[in-house]
Amino acid sequence: MLIKRFYDDKLAQASYMVGCQATGDAVVIDPHRDADFYVDAAEEEGMRITAVTETHIHADYASGTRELAKKTGATMYLSDEGGPGWEYEFAEEDGATLVRDGDGFEIGNIRFRIMHTPGHTPEHICFEVTDGAASDKPMGIFTGDFIFVGDVGRPDLLEKAAGVEGTMEAGARQLYKSLERVRNMPDYLQIWPGHGAGSACGKALGAVPQTTLGYEKVVNWAFACETEDDFVHSVLQDQPEPPVYFAKMKAGNRDGWGVLGHLPTPDHLPADRLEEVIATGAPVVDLRRRTAFQGGHIPGTLSIPFNRSFTNWAGWLLPYDKPIYLLAEGGEQEAVSAARDLAFIGLDNVAGYFGVGAFNAWVESGKVLESAPSIGPEEAQRRLDAGEVHLLDVRGTAEWNEGHIPGAHHCHLGTLTDNLDSCPSDKPIVVACRTGARSAIGQSLLLKHGFDNVINLEGGWVGWRQAGLPVSTE
Amino acid sequence: MLIKRFYDDKLAQASYMVGCQATGDAVVIDPHRDADFYVDAAEEEGMRITAVTETHIHADYASGTRELAKKTGATMYLSDEGGPGWEYEFAEEDGATLVRDGDGFEIGNIRFRIMHTPGHTPEHICFEVTDGAASDKPMGIFTGDFIFVGDVGRPDLLEKAAGVEGTMEAGARQLYKSLERVRNMPDYLQIWPGHGAGSACGKALGAVPQTTLGYEKVVNWAFACETEDDFVHSVLQDQPEPPVYFAKMKAGNRDGWGVLGHLPTPDHLPADRLEEVIATGAPVVDLRRRTAFQGGHIPGTLSIPFNRSFTNWAGWLLPYDKPIYLLAEGGEQEAVSAARDLAFIGLDNVAGYFGVGAFNAWVESGKVLESAPSIGPEEAQRRLDAGEVHLLDVRGTAEWNEGHIPGAHHCHLGTLTDNLDSCPSDKPIVVACRTGARSAIGQSLLLKHGFDNVINLEGGWVGWRQAGLPVSTE
Amino acid sequence: MLIKRFYDDKLAQASYMVGCQATGDAVVIDPHRDADFYVDAAEEEGMRITAVTETHIHADYASGTRELAKKTGATMYLSDEGGPGWEYEFAEEDGATLVRDGDGFEIGNIRFRIMHTPGHTPEHICFEVTDGAASDKPMGIFTGDFIFVGDVGRPDLLEKAAGVEGTMEAGARQLYKSLERVRNMPDYLQIWPGHGAGSACGKALGAVPQTTLGYEKVVNWAFACETEDDFVHSVLQDQPEPPVYFAKMKAGNRDGWGVLGHLPTPDHLPADRLEEVIATGAPVVDLRRRTAFQGGHIPGTLSIPFNRSFTNWAGWLLPYDKPIYLLAEGGEQEAVSAARDLAFIGLDNVAGYFGVGAFNAWVESGKVLESAPSIGPEEAQRRLDAGEVHLLDVRGTAEWNEGHIPGAHHCHLGTLTDNLDSCPSDKPIVVACRTGARSAIGQSLLLKHGFDNVINLEGGWVGWRQAGLPVSTE
Amino acid sequence: MLIKRFYDDKLAQASYMVGCQATGDAVVIDPHRDADFYVDAAEEEGMRITAVTETHIHADYASGTRELAKKTGATMYLSDEGGPGWEYEFAEEDGATLVRDGDGFEIGNIRFRIMHTPGHTPEHICFEVTDGAASDKPMGIFTGDFIFVGDVGRPDLLEKAAGVEGTMEAGARQLYKSLERVRNMPDYLQIWPGHGAGSACGKALGAVPQTTLGYEKVVNWAFACETEDDFVHSVLQDQPEPPVYFAKMKAGNRDGWGVLGHLPTPDHLPADRLEEVIATGAPVVDLRRRTAFQGGHIPGTLSIPFNRSFTNWAGWLLPYDKPIYLLAEGGEQEAVSAARDLAFIGLDNVAGYFGVGAFNAWVESGKVLESAPSIGPEEAQRRLDAGEVHLLDVRGTAEWNEGHIPGAHHCHLGTLTDNLDSCPSDKPIVVACRTGARSAIGQSLLLKHGFDNVINLEGGWVGWRQAGLPVSTE
Repeated sequence: MLIKRFYDDKLAQASYMVGCQATGDAVVIDPHRDADFYVDAAEEEGMRITAVTETHIHADYASGTRELAKKTGATMYLSDEGGPGWEYEFAEEDGATLVRDGDGFEIGNIRFRIMHTPGHTPEHICFEVTDGAASDKPMGIFTGDFIFVGDVGRPDLLEKAAGVEGTMEAGARQLYKSLERVRNMPDYLQIWPGHGAGSACGKALGAVPQTTLGYEKVVNWAFACETEDDFVHSVLQDQPEPPVYFAKMKAGNRDGWGVLGHLPTPDHLPADRLEEVIATGAPVVDLRRRTAFQGGHIPGTLSIPFNRSFTNWAGWLLPYDKPIYLLAEGGEQEAVSAARDLAFIGLDNVAGYFGVGAFNAWVESGKVLESAPSIGPEEAQRRLDAGEVHLLDVRGTAEWNEGHIPGAHHCHLGTLTDNLDSCPSDKPIVVACRTGARSAIGQSLLLKHGFDNVINLEGGWVGWRQAGLPVSTE
Repeated sequence: MLIKRFYDDKLAQASYMVGCQATGDAVVIDPHRDADFYVDAAEEEGMRITAVTETHIHADYASGTRELAKKTGATMYLSDEGGPGWEYEFAEEDGATLVRDGDGFEIGNIRFRIMHTPGHTPEHICFEVTDGAASDKPMGIFTGDFIFVGDVGRPDLLEKAAGVEGTMEAGARQLYKSLERVRNMPDYLQIWPGHGAGSACGKALGAVPQTTLGYEKVVNWAFACETEDDFVHSVLQDQPEPPVYFAKMKAGNRDGWGVLGHLPTPDHLPADRLEEVIATGAPVVDLRRRTAFQGGHIPGTLSIPFNRSFTNWAGWLLPYDKPIYLLAEGGEQEAVSAARDLAFIGLDNVAGYFGVGAFNAWVESGKVLESAPSIGPEEAQRRLDAGEVHLLDVRGTAEWNEGHIPGAHHCHLGTLTDNLDSCPSDKPIVVACRTGARSAIGQSLLLKHGFDNVINLEGGWVGWRQAGLPVSTE
Repeated sequence: MLIKRFYDDKLAQASYMVGCQATGDAVVIDPHRDADFYVDAAEEEGMRITAVTETHIHADYASGTRELAKKTGATMYLSDEGGPGWEYEFAEEDGATLVRDGDGFEIGNIRFRIMHTPGHTPEHICFEVTDGAASDKPMGIFTGDFIFVGDVGRPDLLEKAAGVEGTMEAGARQLYKSLERVRNMPDYLQIWPGHGAGSACGKALGAVPQTTLGYEKVVNWAFACETEDDFVHSVLQDQPEPPVYFAKMKAGNRDGWGVLGHLPTPDHLPADRLEEVIATGAPVVDLRRRTAFQGGHIPGTLSIPFNRSFTNWAGWLLPYDKPIYLLAEGGEQEAVSAARDLAFIGLDNVAGYFGVGAFNAWVESGKVLESAPSIGPEEAQRRLDAGEVHLLDVRGTAEWNEGHIPGAHHCHLGTLTDNLDSCPSDKPIVVACRTGARSAIGQSLLLKHGFDNVINLEGGWVGWRQAGLPVSTE
Repeated sequence: MLIKRFYDDKLAQASYMVGCQATGDAVVIDPHRDADFYVDAAEEEGMRITAVTETHIHADYASGTRELAKKTGATMYLSDEGGPGWEYEFAEEDGATLVRDGDGFEIGNIRFRIMHTPGHTPEHICFEVTDGAASDKPMGIFTGDFIFVGDVGRPDLLEKAAGVEGTMEAGARQLYKSLERVRNMPDYLQIWPGHGAGSACGKALGAVPQTTLGYEKVVNWAFACETEDDFVHSVLQDQPEPPVYFAKMKAGNRDGWGVLGHLPTPDHLPADRLEEVIATGAPVVDLRRRTAFQGGHIPGTLSIPFNRSFTNWAGWLLPYDKPIYLLAEGGEQEAVSAARDLAFIGLDNVAGYFGVGAFNAWVESGKVLESAPSIGPEEAQRRLDAGEVHLLDVRGTAEWNEGHIPGAHHCHLGTLTDNLDSCPSDKPIVVACRTGARSAIGQSLLLKHGFDNVINLEGGWVGWRQAGLPVSTE
């Protein structure tokens, strides 16, 4: 038996390949959209992907189940437990095998048993796995977004992201029942979850790749809740805002994305076309780290640094209906990599990229790379007190509620584009977040939209507190 | 002033970028189809491609002029000297600037003067270049397929490759007149030709990248011809067979290829789909060196080693109307590279590639990699004398005429697919060429077409002669 | 808390990084010798390596503990439980912290408790880990070569590889006691072992990366043994021959390897120096797959294909006291990669590599790449019966005992170099193994040592059986 | 015949490989220190390097002649024309062949004739090349630093860089005589020079790779000088300051560098060791573009952007007797590349590099990346007028003499380290150059040396003039 875990840092997402070495057959669970990635991995192990499945209709990334099945000719196993609104639209057309609680399938000597575990979503299933060659006892469970390491999948996404009112609490209660069901299973079972630290699908995920059922029973807050109501209350509390693109993902994953064949390969565009592209209003995403952007950037570009938060902020800020351009100092390799990450959340419309030459051409043509200024907390305080600046806090609501700078205005970074009206055009705007990273994205967004005096609060809320400046919780 | 020469080894083709550093403008001359390649090169030099041109309607590769102009918005300069049948079909639609002898254009301070130099083709032009910033004297000539280092462009391609009868001699006479015309220009002019060693556009090209007019007057056989008739006789003699794809190139380059945007990126196919693909009859090209193929290959695949002759044999042997598959031990990078080379001669239909896993999967599924045997000259002679084998010589006609093995049959490798009927199915076939490389391709071709006893003559004609065995010139 | 597992396919070896995200501190457990690899991994996670440790004095690879500690300034934790002969020689000089059963250390909020678990080796320790931030219950155990997935570490290596007589059984009994000790620990503990499938440190390792204590209690044969004697008998039975280099590793790991600073980077040698190098008798290792070698190789080179068995056969066949040369068709990247793998088992003396040009130069200088022939089982049988050939089986003793070809001679591939005298020089030698892979290495070895008629048995023992030919177990 | 030109952008240096395809022999002319580079190139062409030579004892880069000869076993041909002080110290020990004017050597069918052409240096030689297979007329001349495209090698380096007084004028007169000598050679000869645009070995080099003797006679200012005195006057005028490392190169190239075997591969250092390294005072070179440095850098690091000027400024500013550290956001590949460039000028002492993790670790540990401010010309003018700032112009003397900002102080960037005393510590320093690039290096240098208020003049002298501000030439 072979188990391989594949972890995508930016999605904080885990997919798995489970194969039987006796027959060479393998199943992939919860694949992202880069089908070649799995084909390569299978080849490296001398395996043949003969089945593809997923735990649920994901909200946070574009499922690759269909893509991979098309490419490999593998059988698709999809949940039939969702009921109206949660049925895979493409299942019939593609000849997928629909599965329900108690059903099973086999990969060589390995047996998979379906467990319906609603809560995070109505159709959510888990896969209990038994290595038939070794024993008839189960070895573990692929839990998707049901049980994480130290947490459980949030049941409020459906309502918040997809706008289906009144489902949060029902989901929470279903989730409690699903937990009750597994509580009686053996402690020694391995738990292979669908997400790790940083995912918006749970609130307290650690960077430990997997866990055991027995350990979770001991340490996971969800198992520790004494009553269903306690649990429901806790699980719905303080969940961060789900990114706006989640609704898009839900629909795409249910209805089926078009088959790509190959991830999009962005075209390298001549440096001298950059100005014309910016003039169209299409987003040109500068992938460099924020200080590089602040030190000097091409006016009109948007800063979304290509780090672990890239996919998240791209999903919040980039349009699904316009061409997207990348500004990749690292050249083709970086651009291809970023385009792959965008395709992972369905942003397939990357129209091309500009390379390092765009910066050089800018400078050589006698234009100046604009800097984006920042100030420290003391100076911010002074200017705020003097009424010279408008202070904009772009953190999440929960963070804001925990404490903020007195006199600040609040607008979550992800919704800033829709709330530009609330920003003054006659006064410098100081943008703040927790440490200065998100606010730098906000700064570039405001600059791009014509606000010409925008300043980043270096160090953010953390720096503000370290400087011992006044705080408010109202 | 900046001059960059770009040389493609497999096409034996040179393209050039000439730029003015004062203005940042650059022209590309005779681009191949990888537009990104030139955009990258321009960026690296801080240049902007504002013009694209070509010396003639190429026969040996797919022109990238249109592709590059579309991508960069550059002005296209195209010859208007060809007359009927030699007019660029897409010129008007694309708004190209048509140029005639004596016309000129400028790139910053650099002046280009058009010289009509028919012979290789009727519309062929050269570009005399003057660096206006340094002098009003010309610096050199971009001669395309007119003058090479030590040779001239062959005037027989039109007739042989495009089938326009009776044009060989007329072309040779035009070429003579074109040579007469430049004979009076200054010795010190640099000559930047369109091809180097190994090109089928000339017969004796060296690996010296460029030359001077004065030196060519001294050493080039063409300038040394005493009369026009001498020249005509010499230039038409012993030219190698032009590849069959040349006709395709002529038409495509005249009519305009579709714009790719980005070179095709072949899809990685799961190893277990290989047998099914082979069964469709589509060519699966094994890119490994020939001894690796001979040591063990997957039955039904075609060996075209990915070396400097790859493009040439691909052009002779691969279809323009069927999907092509690659078997790339080197993985994605090698497959992308090979697909680029195929696109350079218009073979855009690469449907995907199989990686090293295909070999592993073959072996792990219990199947054996077939070997392709070879024998040395002595044993070949013995078996030939005994009437046990059919000896097939796949060299060019000129090579065959210079001498061959007595009793051998002749069929140029490039036409073997159309002459399979002439090969016996009841006798082992020994395939021979000059050294054993081309015959190995022929061996794989015969194996693929069902001949089950095919042997390579190791060392070929060279080895045969070294062994002191009998030869024939009849 | 962060756990990262690093798996080296060729060593079948797992190392781990465990870090506390609150403080940024991390420990590496059982590092191999590529210190940069761990430094990179730590940086990617924003961690600082402040401690390095290992479970025992490894026999199968060169420990990187010292290297990594030197590079990072981290504290070394080393077992003080070994007693005479099993004490780390460099511990004092390097200021390592010696630990004993019951001791502990902390990495940020994470607590490590030392458990002495002798058996595989006398000084072997495990690390029980508790994530103090989450709970005061332990989460799992890093078991090194004590407990694997479905197996336990073999206690016979010391005697067989290091030649310490009479220790096998004592080790087995210690191992039994160590197992008894953990039997009472909670089922839910994760087990993170030091090896996976393919390691010579255990005999039945699967490709499942980790397990749980409870599951092992149920399925692991070792826990199922009813008495100590049963266990001792089982664990010592049918263990494969340990590679000869294991003795070298034991000594080096105990005494401390010299610090490399950077893994060796092999020098690219000019193709024309290859013959001279071969003439010195130094091994020149051809890294290509075996069929490529068989199709055509440079005489005098040794075939050790660069696949998952590379390190193993390199350890058996390459000298520790002579320069080693690589013949890497894949160029610098492949050579660097192979040299890294060799350094992993202490073979630091790679004097350089030859690239693909060596093959080309060979051919272009008019020499022929020699082929290495193979035959199928039927023909082998015919020639064996006719007394025409000497059949040499190079499998392990346990394999040989399970069944072999009647009339074959047996010599484990790893000991063939020392037993060349037993091979006839006047008769063709047919080399056989299980499938044809090991025998191909043997074939190249014999060819290199002057045997000029050596044939590989295609398909090996498996093919022989499939062909229904007679077998013997005597 | 085969000619390959290799051009190193940062050194603006050309080396050449000339080979005879009939025999496979090749000579390399003026190699840099990366011997593997030439070995690779030769292999790619199926050539064997059997000779290595150089035109003179270079001042601007570390010669690779000895390194390459050692590696390949090739014959070294070295000038014996230099007289005392200009004799190769290692020639006898290494068994080099010393050559004088009129001597020759052959590479297959290709003949090289030595021409002594003193002026740039006393021992300077050229190689006239004849392709014996094609003609007995010469084809061209490898002119080293004698004749460039549009310029000649400067004869003042010896005096200025090596401090040999009174040699400038003598050199200039020798150079004139050398030019007279070639003036009578045929116009059609190709000229293959040793440098291109950007080299400090000449003052007006274009980016045209090669030229012809006849064209140079027409356009090169040196051939146009009417008298020897005119020439001497012109050639010594307005030459830029030679970098301080030139003296080091002269000595190293004459005495022979130690053989590297392989270019140094810098070690990746753990991010958390950076502060300790900075504290030692060793230079830590931040390779990012200047705006990235200005946007946020680690205090105490030195900015030398990894662009075409990198080698030049490294040679001016880095020590030959201390360890050097790199801060390479691009990771290993970039660090290896930069270390190679440093080794090209003999800076072999790269002690390691820090990667992108160093920036992340800095930020994650709660420290702030410092920004380096810049101001535009108007504000600079205002503050200069108000006496608030000290304006430091770091351009070359010739540039300063052509015009500068009134009130500015002048100190060539390359000598700033030795003139820190002249900079005020009680006043902000505004650093200026032509465009803002060199001054940014100067800014980082001052910051590193403890000046805490240093500002870059954005746009530099060019921007100052565009803004129409007052200028001075006094």
